[in-house]
Amino acid sequence: MSLLFKHLRIHQVFGANTDVGKTIITAALVRASAAEQHRVFYLKPVSTGPMQDADDEHVKRYVGGHSSLVQAHCLYRFEEPLSPHLAAKMAAEKDGLLHAPVPSDATFVTSVASYIRRCASAFSEKAHMYVETAGGVHSPTLSGTTQVDSYRPLFLPTMLVGDSKLGGISSTIASFEALLLRGYIVDSVLLFKDEYYRNWEYLASYFAERGVKVSAFKPPPPREDDLAKNFTVTEEYYRTLVPKNKTGGLFDVLRHLDERHAARLADLKTMPSRTLDTIWWPFVQHGHVKGPKDVNVIDSAWGDFFTVYNGHAQSSVTATVPASDSVLQPQFDGSASWWTQALGHAHPSLTLAAARAAGRYGHVMFPEATHLPALKLAERLVKDGPGKGWASRAFISDNGSTGMEVALKMALRAYNVRHGEGLAPARKKGMGVLGLKGSYHGDTIGAMDACEEGVYTCEWHQAKGYWFDPPTVSIRQCKVFVTLPPAMNSHDPDIEVDSVASAYDVPSRMDSPLATLYRNFIQETLQKLAAAGGPPLGALVLEPLVMGAGGMIFVDPLFQRIMIDVVRGSNSSPSGWSGVPVIFDEVFVGLFRIGMLSTAPLLGVTPDISVHAKILTGGLVPLAATLASDSIFQAFVSDNKVDALLHGHSYTAHAVGCEVANETMDIVERLAEGDTWTDAQDAWRAVTPERTELSVWSFWNPGFVDAMSRLDIVSEVMTLGTVVAIKLKDDHAGYQSASAQAVLRALNSSVNRGEGTVAPGGAPFSVHFRTLGNVAYFMTSLNTPAATVRSVEDRIWAVLDGKVQG
Amino acid sequence: MSLLFKHLRIHQVFGANTDVGKTIITAALVRASAAEQHRVFYLKPVSTGPMQDADDEHVKRYVGGHSSLVQAHCLYRFEEPLSPHLAAKMAAEKDGLLHAPVPSDATFVTSVASYIRRCASAFSEKAHMYVETAGGVHSPTLSGTTQVDSYRPLFLPTMLVGDSKLGGISSTIASFEALLLRGYIVDSVLLFKDEYYRNWEYLASYFAERGVKVSAFKPPPPREDDLAKNFTVTEEYYRTLVPKNKTGGLFDVLRHLDERHAARLADLKTMPSRTLDTIWWPFVQHGHVKGPKDVNVIDSAWGDFFTVYNGHAQSSVTATVPASDSVLQPQFDGSASWWTQALGHAHPSLTLAAARAAGRYGHVMFPEATHLPALKLAERLVKDGPGKGWASRAFISDNGSTGMEVALKMALRAYNVRHGEGLAPARKKGMGVLGLKGSYHGDTIGAMDACEEGVYTCEWHQAKGYWFDPPTVSIRQCKVFVTLPPAMNSHDPDIEVDSVASAYDVPSRMDSPLATLYRNFIQETLQKLAAAGGPPLGALVLEPLVMGAGGMIFVDPLFQRIMIDVVRGSNSSPSGWSGVPVIFDEVFVGLFRIGMLSTAPLLGVTPDISVHAKILTGGLVPLAATLASDSIFQAFVSDNKVDALLHGHSYTAHAVGCEVANETMDIVERLAEGDTWTDAQDAWRAVTPERTELSVWSFWNPGFVDAMSRLDIVSEVMTLGTVVAIKLKDDHAGYQSASAQAVLRALNSSVNRGEGTVAPGGAPFSVHFRTLGNVAYFMTSLNTPAATVRSVEDRIWAVLDGKVQG
Repeated sequence: MSLLFKHLRIHQVFGANTDVGKTIITAALVRASAAEQHRVFYLKPVSTGPMQDADDEHVKRYVGGHSSLVQAHCLYRFEEPLSPHLAAKMAAEKDGLLHAPVPSDATFVTSVASYIRRCASAFSEKAHMYVETAGGVHSPTLSGTTQVDSYRPLFLPTMLVGDSKLGGISSTIASFEALLLRGYIVDSVLLFKDEYYRNWEYLASYFAERGVKVSAFKPPPPREDDLAKNFTVTEEYYRTLVPKNKTGGLFDVLRHLDERHAARLADLKTMPSRTLDTIWWPFVQHGHVKGPKDVNVIDSAWGDFFTVYNGHAQSSVTATVPASDSVLQPQFDGSASWWTQALGHAHPSLTLAAARAAGRYGHVMFPEATHLPALKLAERLVKDGPGKGWASRAFISDNGSTGMEVALKMALRAYNVRHGEGLAPARKKGMGVLGLKGSYHGDTIGAMDACEEGVYTCEWHQAKGYWFDPPTVSIRQCKVFVTLPPAMNSHDPDIEVDSVASAYDVPSRMDSPLATLYRNFIQETLQKLAAAGGPPLGALVLEPLVMGAGGMIFVDPLFQRIMIDVVRGSNSSPSGWSGVPVIFDEVFVGLFRIGMLSTAPLLGVTPDISVHAKILTGGLVPLAATLASDSIFQAFVSDNKVDALLHGHSYTAHAVGCEVANETMDIVERLAEGDTWTDAQDAWRAVTPERTELSVWSFWNPGFVDAMSRLDIVSEVMTLGTVVAIKLKDDHAGYQSASAQAVLRALNSSVNRGEGTVAPGGAPFSVHFRTLGNVAYFMTSLNTPAATVRSVEDRIWAVLDGKVQG
Repeated sequence: MSLLFKHLRIHQVFGANTDVGKTIITAALVRASAAEQHRVFYLKPVSTGPMQDADDEHVKRYVGGHSSLVQAHCLYRFEEPLSPHLAAKMAAEKDGLLHAPVPSDATFVTSVASYIRRCASAFSEKAHMYVETAGGVHSPTLSGTTQVDSYRPLFLPTMLVGDSKLGGISSTIASFEALLLRGYIVDSVLLFKDEYYRNWEYLASYFAERGVKVSAFKPPPPREDDLAKNFTVTEEYYRTLVPKNKTGGLFDVLRHLDERHAARLADLKTMPSRTLDTIWWPFVQHGHVKGPKDVNVIDSAWGDFFTVYNGHAQSSVTATVPASDSVLQPQFDGSASWWTQALGHAHPSLTLAAARAAGRYGHVMFPEATHLPALKLAERLVKDGPGKGWASRAFISDNGSTGMEVALKMALRAYNVRHGEGLAPARKKGMGVLGLKGSYHGDTIGAMDACEEGVYTCEWHQAKGYWFDPPTVSIRQCKVFVTLPPAMNSHDPDIEVDSVASAYDVPSRMDSPLATLYRNFIQETLQKLAAAGGPPLGALVLEPLVMGAGGMIFVDPLFQRIMIDVVRGSNSSPSGWSGVPVIFDEVFVGLFRIGMLSTAPLLGVTPDISVHAKILTGGLVPLAATLASDSIFQAFVSDNKVDALLHGHSYTAHAVGCEVANETMDIVERLAEGDTWTDAQDAWRAVTPERTELSVWSFWNPGFVDAMSRLDIVSEVMTLGTVVAIKLKDDHAGYQSASAQAVLRALNSSVNRGEGTVAPGGAPFSVHFRTLGNVAYFMTSLNTPAATVRSVEDRIWAVLDGKVQG
């Protein structure tokens, strides 16, 4: 939770190193703020060293004389003048006993945030707060996480106290960059004027080029051994920094900080209307946007939460938010930002991966070239990733839609090379694909043409192919059903199965009567199509297991498996693919989004081409990979340039995207071994104890899913991996329905249940969600803590259950 | 120029701060290397402080006793113990006189590189080199540029000496991150074991998670005042670090560094074949790739140069490169990496922009949302950028191709909303566009469908529209011609004009007979098409001024202007666009690629829709913007969701791309005022002195362009902005021609003209180039130094002129 108050300007003070004058400069700022007759809060979250330095009264005297306007506080105090992580450890182990646990990052941040919120709500007049950190930017906090990372959830505006000594230019700039890497707003750099090293001269011009104001001050006098004398000279020094006439550098800094604070608030206030004036949103009917209040202003993001502006709500007549509350508040990113997030927002490892690739390569052109990030990514995807065992090559492009265009070009060419000689030119152009109703493969026109006519349409869209209405899997009233489509003319379309695990146990279902029904139905339909002289079908294109944009349709995996078996026929071609090339569009479902690296093992068949994107870069930048088997690749190899796959984007295999993807996969590998996954898997194992091997599981609790499935308002529920989909009863179903939006609107408000929510800083939070007509879905990252999932489950339950009762 | 030798392992030693023991640890490493009987080079490029410390003999004694294996050297020495930039300034100003200039970054790097190359070539046996930097990572070098940036062109593998004191955890990690931001390979972190602060414990685990080995050593004894005694205790200390039995931590470091060196060489060696095994390249006929030698292994990049591996050439029988040469060498990025580069590779400001957006937001979903990077970018493009005066909104997508698909969807819908009611469904689907032969708008199928049938084709491509064969502008034998296409049936197709400036002076040509000819020709053709009952044409789609991928075709701007005038007719529609919506595809030509922000002012008309990409992000990550006028936008606004522009990519308006684009435009604004641009503009003004206002100019020298145009082998030349295109005489013209590749092959080799080339470190360099059939083109960034352009001109001239003579 990022904290921003209209009346209370807060700045956190970071130091370029220890002993650079952070406390002295902060104290002078406190005094100056008090001199301006503002209430001033001085917060030192962690203090190490001799105890009297951390005593409230002492600190108050130190930072602000006896002004009644000043309130000073320290949250954690340790006597040892050590790095806080060691001091905390020593204190915890005192006398050989573990007498107090070391606070976790979340506890630490919540305690800081709580104090700030208390200060903000205690007074409504204009106030300033200075939060002084300990040591340098990367000094560890109590838990061992370094400060820039552990304070990051609060995203407080920042000042950096520079280092005026020899070497101080370096430590100041390096510290500044560490702050930038976490996205901090650095409003000011302050340091002492050392007349010999003159660092301030260099830094003033360096930072001016970067838009940051540098202010330099007379250094403090040498410390006197005599305490009384020291007090006198110190007070004298402060009087020169903070003169009675309220002029000079420090008051300039104060005005500058006030201006920056005001400018940030003004930006947030004007952003909604400015956005409505200049932005054309994707997938948004601007005619439905009623005004600035409909604009979600995202000030920053961290972990699973956006930080959003609520000032436009505060100013409305229906405001329920007190004016002294933070104008920023956390919002759970309930769609994982359009299904992209794997590791939460602003993950420092991904930022650093992006930075090191940008620093080493920028972007370098890819045809006939190679670089380590792209090569490693290709090797990983092909050999150890979703391509393992069948893929030979990776073709890299920019997003899922381009990745699918590449896949279609590959498949249709391969088909054409093998069967095209007998095809008239018009039939060649008219080749279609075989797929499922409800498919979605992206918004570029080629990708759209692989889907039936539907709402995602445009002037040039021409549906090219045939699409089966698929049987689906769902949970209703705690029972698991496979539901057949009307086209199958079944007496009872709903077939109950034992459990979710049973539904996804494809091998055990291969000899069932249903499998025979599917096989006959598919074969007969294809024969009818052929007899009717339809266009040749050159590829089978599937979103395995779940069709996302089509409405979170959980397709019966058995049906998809049998489709593949049918098109491939019994005799596998010696040259690789058989029947038609099979494309798995795993852009949404792949890379653990639904709990598995790839859907191929579950389906028991591998594709000839697969496409991966979204989660591939952990949710940071666009990138896609199309994997292909060697038999597909060989269709393009000749001595003739125009036989090549003449597709490419300028930024193909951009180093930043590839490096971030590699980093993501490293981290996900570790997550897969971690407790959060194991615990969630155990919860699902527990509901099907008869099974030893786990094929499917979910981050969402089976109990929650069952409970939802019992609600009257709910038609069905289904979950896999990070995704839970809730279909609401609605007569006007489909993409145009707004029922799910309407029913869940209460999630848009934050609920104040006191301190200690799962949001950063323990703040009340709202839930951002996207719906697909009458389907509401929610999605976590791959590293969302279980407590967060539980809390979001509670929120969803409260809203939906309330609806039923209300 | 990145330096990497097989026999000589080099590591540069950075410090987390000044006074962290960099020299002591480096000296110990030198001694250990010598103990292993390797030749050791110790290079201290800059030394400040008392002179004897920098004396070769003293340094040698200090670092390596009297071993004949050790060679120590210092390049720049200053007595004052100050930051090098101040010491250099003081030395330069000594006695009030400027008696020696402060070396520039290029001079500094060249002198370091020269020394290293001399060492490498002097001995062929296994050797080690340690390059010790001064102060902390960001301490300024002589010119004032900080060390991480000024050493970056050499891209030497790096060790970081950490800080063992209080605060040292922070300065060590911050320094490490500063190195990562420049892409450095950090092989090792070394520091002293301070038993009280125990930083090494924390750092060992911190860096282990990040794959970097930390080694800690006993700290040195306190300095003795007595020099002889100090010498004794120091030597004693070194004996404990570097014991005679060659065991212990320092020798472990040595082995680790050797392993890292060997692993890097092994990676480079295997990359070509591994790439051929896993990568499917864009736009490459893999059948033409003869083997590993055809793979361009890019190890890193900086400015306008790739650093490429030449080891696969070295090991061949035709090797002309001595084994002692660097296996990495610079290669001028002659196509600006597929037309993307604006500011050169690995520009630190772009890296930091990417990092700060990643750190603040990661990626946040965009529909109905806003964030500062996207909003600022949209405002800038619409209000102060290419949309100034006509655009109302920006729709952001991922690359030029998707940007064009969006543009086409916009234009066809707007046309359809106004005229569609009378259209039969089949004619609606069959709507075409009007354009020019040779157009290219990207590789997704919708973008391809806006181009005529050609080589960039695939199974689903269907050319939808009509394309005029356009008149072109070119320089032949120093004369400027407008050349009419055969379809115009002109008696003499070549019309000579005064100058390039005259050709692009559209207003003065509007009343010319040629303008009338164009107008009549276009009107008659359109009437014939309409009479023939062709599909309705729903948009005019142009790449203004230059059609890039179609073969760098410089279209007569007058023809494009009159096309627009004709389709718009005389009475402008009250609701905005007139006739058909006009799309400017400025993906390649916009944002100063051809010397102007937008082509609209030169053409004297604004479009209804424009598309921008490539250079938009300075050449770092994919991003595109489609700008539209309000009348286009209004065609999508209704109360019905499905009327909206249902297009969007998961990473729409990703914060990293938007922030990098904003940073790029800030930098380009400053470049536009700089000397390099002004000088180039002056050179072009000088060849048309009759004109006061400059409409067109080029980074390429008019004299060079004229000289090329005189060569027998050259058919024509043309240039605008950063682009120069040279069409070679070839009977087998077109995309399939390989003539330009064959003729220019000599550019692939580096030419050793001694020290002091324009490449980083003054190394011999090769030129990477792309051709389009019989057209060779070369492209600079927007900040390429004039000296680099001159040098590349010389290289091109030498090759082409040689061909003529040979």
